[in-house]
Amino acid sequence: MSTHLIAILNGPNLNLLGTREPTLYGAATLGDVESLCAETAEALGLAIDFRQTNSEGELISWVQECRDRASGVIINPAGYGHTSIALMDALLTLECPVIEVHLTNIHRREPFRRHSYTSEAALGMICGLGPRGYALALQALADILAEEETDGEETP
Amino acid sequence: MSTHLIAILNGPNLNLLGTREPTLYGAATLGDVESLCAETAEALGLAIDFRQTNSEGELISWVQECRDRASGVIINPAGYGHTSIALMDALLTLECPVIEVHLTNIHRREPFRRHSYTSEAALGMICGLGPRGYALALQALADILAEEETDGEETP
Amino acid sequence: MSTHLIAILNGPNLNLLGTREPTLYGAATLGDVESLCAETAEALGLAIDFRQTNSEGELISWVQECRDRASGVIINPAGYGHTSIALMDALLTLECPVIEVHLTNIHRREPFRRHSYTSEAALGMICGLGPRGYALALQALADILAEEETDGEETP
Amino acid sequence: MSTHLIAILNGPNLNLLGTREPTLYGAATLGDVESLCAETAEALGLAIDFRQTNSEGELISWVQECRDRASGVIINPAGYGHTSIALMDALLTLECPVIEVHLTNIHRREPFRRHSYTSEAALGMICGLGPRGYALALQALADILAEEETDGEETP
Amino acid sequence: MSTHLIAILNGPNLNLLGTREPTLYGAATLGDVESLCAETAEALGLAIDFRQTNSEGELISWVQECRDRASGVIINPAGYGHTSIALMDALLTLECPVIEVHLTNIHRREPFRRHSYTSEAALGMICGLGPRGYALALQALADILAEEETDGEETP
Amino acid sequence: MSTHLIAILNGPNLNLLGTREPTLYGAATLGDVESLCAETAEALGLAIDFRQTNSEGELISWVQECRDRASGVIINPAGYGHTSIALMDALLTLECPVIEVHLTNIHRREPFRRHSYTSEAALGMICGLGPRGYALALQALADILAEEETDGEETP
Amino acid sequence: MSTHLIAILNGPNLNLLGTREPTLYGAATLGDVESLCAETAEALGLAIDFRQTNSEGELISWVQECRDRASGVIINPAGYGHTSIALMDALLTLECPVIEVHLTNIHRREPFRRHSYTSEAALGMICGLGPRGYALALQALADILAEEETDGEETP
Amino acid sequence: MSTHLIAILNGPNLNLLGTREPTLYGAATLGDVESLCAETAEALGLAIDFRQTNSEGELISWVQECRDRASGVIINPAGYGHTSIALMDALLTLECPVIEVHLTNIHRREPFRRHSYTSEAALGMICGLGPRGYALALQALADILAEEETDGEETP
Amino acid sequence: MSTHLIAILNGPNLNLLGTREPTLYGAATLGDVESLCAETAEALGLAIDFRQTNSEGELISWVQECRDRASGVIINPAGYGHTSIALMDALLTLECPVIEVHLTNIHRREPFRRHSYTSEAALGMICGLGPRGYALALQALADILAEEETDGEETP
Amino acid sequence: MSTHLIAILNGPNLNLLGTREPTLYGAATLGDVESLCAETAEALGLAIDFRQTNSEGELISWVQECRDRASGVIINPAGYGHTSIALMDALLTLECPVIEVHLTNIHRREPFRRHSYTSEAALGMICGLGPRGYALALQALADILAEEETDGEETP
Amino acid sequence: MSTHLIAILNGPNLNLLGTREPTLYGAATLGDVESLCAETAEALGLAIDFRQTNSEGELISWVQECRDRASGVIINPAGYGHTSIALMDALLTLECPVIEVHLTNIHRREPFRRHSYTSEAALGMICGLGPRGYALALQALADILAEEETDGEETP
Amino acid sequence: MSTHLIAILNGPNLNLLGTREPTLYGAATLGDVESLCAETAEALGLAIDFRQTNSEGELISWVQECRDRASGVIINPAGYGHTSIALMDALLTLECPVIEVHLTNIHRREPFRRHSYTSEAALGMICGLGPRGYALALQALADILAEEETDGEETP
Repeated sequence: MSTHLIAILNGPNLNLLGTREPTLYGAATLGDVESLCAETAEALGLAIDFRQTNSEGELISWVQECRDRASGVIINPAGYGHTSIALMDALLTLECPVIEVHLTNIHRREPFRRHSYTSEAALGMICGLGPRGYALALQALADILAEEETDGEETP
Repeated sequence: MSTHLIAILNGPNLNLLGTREPTLYGAATLGDVESLCAETAEALGLAIDFRQTNSEGELISWVQECRDRASGVIINPAGYGHTSIALMDALLTLECPVIEVHLTNIHRREPFRRHSYTSEAALGMICGLGPRGYALALQALADILAEEETDGEETP
Repeated sequence: MSTHLIAILNGPNLNLLGTREPTLYGAATLGDVESLCAETAEALGLAIDFRQTNSEGELISWVQECRDRASGVIINPAGYGHTSIALMDALLTLECPVIEVHLTNIHRREPFRRHSYTSEAALGMICGLGPRGYALALQALADILAEEETDGEETP
Repeated sequence: MSTHLIAILNGPNLNLLGTREPTLYGAATLGDVESLCAETAEALGLAIDFRQTNSEGELISWVQECRDRASGVIINPAGYGHTSIALMDALLTLECPVIEVHLTNIHRREPFRRHSYTSEAALGMICGLGPRGYALALQALADILAEEETDGEETP
Repeated sequence: MSTHLIAILNGPNLNLLGTREPTLYGAATLGDVESLCAETAEALGLAIDFRQTNSEGELISWVQECRDRASGVIINPAGYGHTSIALMDALLTLECPVIEVHLTNIHRREPFRRHSYTSEAALGMICGLGPRGYALALQALADILAEEETDGEETP
Repeated sequence: MSTHLIAILNGPNLNLLGTREPTLYGAATLGDVESLCAETAEALGLAIDFRQTNSEGELISWVQECRDRASGVIINPAGYGHTSIALMDALLTLECPVIEVHLTNIHRREPFRRHSYTSEAALGMICGLGPRGYALALQALADILAEEETDGEETP
Repeated sequence: MSTHLIAILNGPNLNLLGTREPTLYGAATLGDVESLCAETAEALGLAIDFRQTNSEGELISWVQECRDRASGVIINPAGYGHTSIALMDALLTLECPVIEVHLTNIHRREPFRRHSYTSEAALGMICGLGPRGYALALQALADILAEEETDGEETP
Repeated sequence: MSTHLIAILNGPNLNLLGTREPTLYGAATLGDVESLCAETAEALGLAIDFRQTNSEGELISWVQECRDRASGVIINPAGYGHTSIALMDALLTLECPVIEVHLTNIHRREPFRRHSYTSEAALGMICGLGPRGYALALQALADILAEEETDGEETP
Repeated sequence: MSTHLIAILNGPNLNLLGTREPTLYGAATLGDVESLCAETAEALGLAIDFRQTNSEGELISWVQECRDRASGVIINPAGYGHTSIALMDALLTLECPVIEVHLTNIHRREPFRRHSYTSEAALGMICGLGPRGYALALQALADILAEEETDGEETP
Repeated sequence: MSTHLIAILNGPNLNLLGTREPTLYGAATLGDVESLCAETAEALGLAIDFRQTNSEGELISWVQECRDRASGVIINPAGYGHTSIALMDALLTLECPVIEVHLTNIHRREPFRRHSYTSEAALGMICGLGPRGYALALQALADILAEEETDGEETP
Repeated sequence: MSTHLIAILNGPNLNLLGTREPTLYGAATLGDVESLCAETAEALGLAIDFRQTNSEGELISWVQECRDRASGVIINPAGYGHTSIALMDALLTLECPVIEVHLTNIHRREPFRRHSYTSEAALGMICGLGPRGYALALQALADILAEEETDGEETP
Repeated sequence: MSTHLIAILNGPNLNLLGTREPTLYGAATLGDVESLCAETAEALGLAIDFRQTNSEGELISWVQECRDRASGVIINPAGYGHTSIALMDALLTLECPVIEVHLTNIHRREPFRRHSYTSEAALGMICGLGPRGYALALQALADILAEEETDGEETP
């Protein structure tokens, strides 16, 4: 059995993590998050492809690429999650499981952050738990992929 | 009289046509749509420039380019049609006729797909008729351009 | 193979076409539209039944009649499209393809004209292209019926 | 250092898990979920107090009891999450971290399930990942408690 | 004591009952419903006048006629129930009891079917119970009329 | 100079005037209103054509007829004023002045009676003054027509 | 029988009549309107007290004064009609009939001009008929007062 | 064939029936309603279990109990019908037919009483017919159960 | 004359008073509030029955009990005031005066705290004045009861 | 220690108290209210400055004056409470405690009376208790001022 | 060429500037603002008329006076900007350019401060820049007036 | 002291300035605006970096770059101002002052142009003053930077 690849896609402004409103978003940088993901993935026997972009179009294209190469997707769409129908449409074309992650609890913030188009296309959401949300999402995907292999079918 | 050029501009995720939710969007690929357009245009004596992009900014720039070179525009804005004021603003700068095409009948889908900023800048809309909507739009533009030449003035 | 009959049903005030707000609706009369439809249909090998009424109840009854005799319906519901659930319910009982036509682009007009109950029951919509919208709708129906005969099944 | 107690509080109808709409909520019973939690907690060195009630008032009282005895709370408020300001008020009196869990992705369901008063009082939410959401929440709490002990202060 | 006449008025598209979306509306035709009503009425010692129309104006006129001749009205306004203030106004002129009947449970359908102007003028509503809703309404009217005769006054 | 004809068009349920909710609508019958109008018109040197219908389609057709024969229109659309875009569209085709009359002050009644599509196509509205509203509207039209003849142009 | 006094109260900016947006409000000045009212009143045997103010508080006080001295009130509240609950409350204390007058048809203007708090306290409204609306209101009040004297009671 | 048990569940404040706002809810006590149900059930060959509670949690638990023992449920949720998603969720777990009963016509009352979460889980609703609504619901259930036995399948 | 009993009913989470968000709700415990009420009542010659519950159903039952034994009710519904139609319905069955008390000024807090169903059934509300709001309510009830005894009728 | 001055400011139409809708607002005149306040203040050792105006600007100026001279403010803003942001802004500049009083329970009246801008700037509100609401507010201010003197700091 | 007069009109509570919420509005008094304006105007060769009022009516009258004497208007409507249609109507009668100034950025404050009726009648708005917003507005008006004199026509 | 750099960032379609709807946006091209900014900046002793892009992602990245190199930002977000939460998030990471500029008065245009996410992150806004709005913004920034240097602290 080959190693599963999990794409971890990060949207706009996440490159500033650690320096942007640290009381809200925490002190960890995006590099720290990537390291945490890499360690977690290695322990779980998964490969990861970790990326960030400020461009909606590039994020959409990366999602499309996942159709052929990823066994699972973790996406933190940041600001585009609330406004991008196009991103949602791209995610809807995926057959592998998608987990949406937000560093903060979006349900406690401004009203315009409480709605997520991305959620319409995601299996589940983890929010408010900071960078460890990425690690939990990886663990959830590892479980789901293991179950699928056992069952010979996807767990919806 | 020189040949009229019609720009046919396609927005995000349309590159996946035929493989994306085929029960909803049909089995034809974007290549098939382009072929249909090319054949129809040839029969009508029109030239076409057929493009697709996932990038909102690129789509806007393509619309701007039409100001100098196109006699008509057919646009399938996909997800950006519902959210992009900037795309609408670009279309509003055109003087040539614009026809908006959607493969599905957007009026029967989710509420957020029923509103189109693009429509504010389009002469008309054809939706729900699949790829043949593009061919009908070409035919409409051919008629309109012929009338304009006869009248010596644009039919608004 | 017998000739397909297409019912072309027109709602309230369309009898005034050509004289009613011509800068908005154009100079063609409803007779002109009927002639255009008749010529187009003949070229396509279709028969048409072209009617107009100001009565919502009569329009509903005409739609019901189509269940037994029409292979396709083109409907310009005019003002009733925005308000009549009963008309929508009648259209929902049809199995043949329905195309909604509006002379103007209803998406650019008053808010109350942007919602169409009729659309919930129509395969597609063509709007903003003036009388030629009827001709395009006929052509679309001819294509769809031809495909159905080839496939031995309806294209939804 | 004494063992941390995590209260796991389940709201109305969750006693029917496994028999209630299994295609939506899965085949695991609440007993299965409790077993999963017990195993996970044991591995993490945590104690749990796992309960279910159909009564809003009892759920509120259980939350209040946590003020004195729990180091963390996992709550699946089920239907009361969407309607109970009183439950939210009870949770707001807690100083320990609270994680809200939902078996299904509430953001993809009926509009009235997309709003959660409970979220206003929770550190984070995990939803759509089925019973494993409880296990992930336990792991997150174990991490947070460990960090707090290291730091000598709570991670808000 | 003379026999009470109950008017049973049916709105648009109900003439298609049995053939229109039978999985939703059932297999009984409007003739079957009329037979059921006739049998029930006979058993209860009531006379009925059972009608259907697609015309809003005719439905209003039929309601007005009831002022002089009916002891009770059963109305299934179909699509007009949701949109017609004029029909509501006609019903408000009646002094005899009015019961609104819907074959389906309108509270579980599209949002635009959940509001009924007719209800503002009806004593009660029975919905979701199929054709037997008519029979139950007849029985309720028989009870109410019997009570009125006993009391010498109407039960509001 | 020939006599001006004023069409006075009455919508649904106005045939019941005097018997329908008299504490709300007053004791005068529609015949009384017609007599008042006839007397007033005679004094003003105007001819009138006074009609009532329960049918929306018939009301639309009567409005259309006014295009060729009426110098002014007084319309009490009753319930259709609040719901009929088609009636508004018919009125918009008129070039002569239109005055909308309501017996009651619609601004003090239920919310759904406070909006009038008819008003979008009327020069003015008189409401809440009972049958004398018709007489005042006739007087206003007499003034307006006299001014037009003096000016040789319509006062919009 | 003594002469009835009718208070005619005008709100903010009406002092600019004739010079303010004359294509919208007409060329007559407020002095012209007062002259028209004086002539009309004289012909009807009524006395008038015609005033204008830009101050909401003064307008309220003038309304209060009418409690002791006026037999009827004509009010053109201008901008305060749409926003002043306090003015409405003052009018609600009057027992004599109140008629609201607007020079333009407020139902055809910006949405914020379509709601009138004043209407909640007025017997009726006349709008869109320019200065003659004042004259018609005077005539209506003359009729109503005459009826009251005949009946020995007010016609509500 | 054994006797079918019908659970008749009553929500908050219905214990006050007959003494609570009798002009609105009628003079019959809950005991009278139970007697009426008992007589009706006996005549129809049905057994009943008639209960009332002011507690939302208890009502939910009673609904859950019906899963194993009732062939049908009649529920008058009173105030909880408008606010309780948790009660709706409990009802959605039932496979037997559920009929919602309200003594008054909830569609004619305050806006917050016009929406019913319970309806989302009920086969049908009977409202506005007072205590006889319970009897009619019993009769409807008797019919439905008889049909099911005849058909060997449930009539949805 | 016997001593009047005033029921003072407190809703969910008020048992935590003094320890729950003291900067918002103050440092006084519920015991302190009860003492204040007892002293105030004694000075006014009133008896009190002071209770608290987290259960909506129990609160409703307590309100119902007041029908037979209380001369006045002071209710602090806490979170249930904003959501419970059932509690409002219970209060509506009372004939004695009801005063609603909130410790904080609910009009300055989150939007969902600004609406109170309880207010629909209360004579008045005192809010934002902390525990002294209870004492003021007692004094108001003492006044009202004294007036009633003087008048021989209730002051509504 | 000097005597505290309490400003008691009354808004529009309160000068009509006792004569304006007495079934709603009671029979006491504003003079009666002033007497009650004077007596209550004297008993509490407070001085009062009791005023009324119909002018929003004057009310604002009076509030501003309180900055230098009042130890507390009681305001019954009447109609301006619902509409005046400027009045709210004036109140926000005060540092002394403000209590809003309404004679009626504004939460039970028309929707536009349920929102109060004034509340955003008030410590608390007393409503629905008639003129005694003023006396209770005076007593509350006396308590608060006494506490402040004891504490040497304001109780917010 | 004579000196241009610029009217600088300030609305309610601005007389408190410097003492009212200085962290929000800054430490400068209205006198300081006037001095800044005087200096700036002198440098630009403009005359100013600087006023403040708490009265909506007076503010309206001052705007009206500008029709004859001012070449430009700078208005800080404060609280009246959000609520006064009458003020907007007065501004709409001006032909000279109007610039709206707010000390704070109203788009970042409470929702009710984000809408400005005044803006409907202003050429532009400067907000959030404190007192220097007045100076910038003066400079903009100087530019505009200079351009007009050069062009011999107003820049709209 | 080194020269301050001000970034002047322009969003989509502003490259078409002067040719796009000149009656609305004016005849100056973006080059003209840049020249005006360069001259103004030079006079103020500021350096500028003037850019335009149609790409939302590029605009976000440019904003991010300002964190290290700009002393102030002037942004005309054009269409992205109304829709881009991601752009707002980028601006929120800046510590230097941001001024939003719009050529037209967005408060007088279509409703969807009246809301600006950008404003949530801007110190102030200047709109409706055409290209001179950029010059005024530069002057405001020069003032603010000078004050900061004087104070040794930023003026918020």
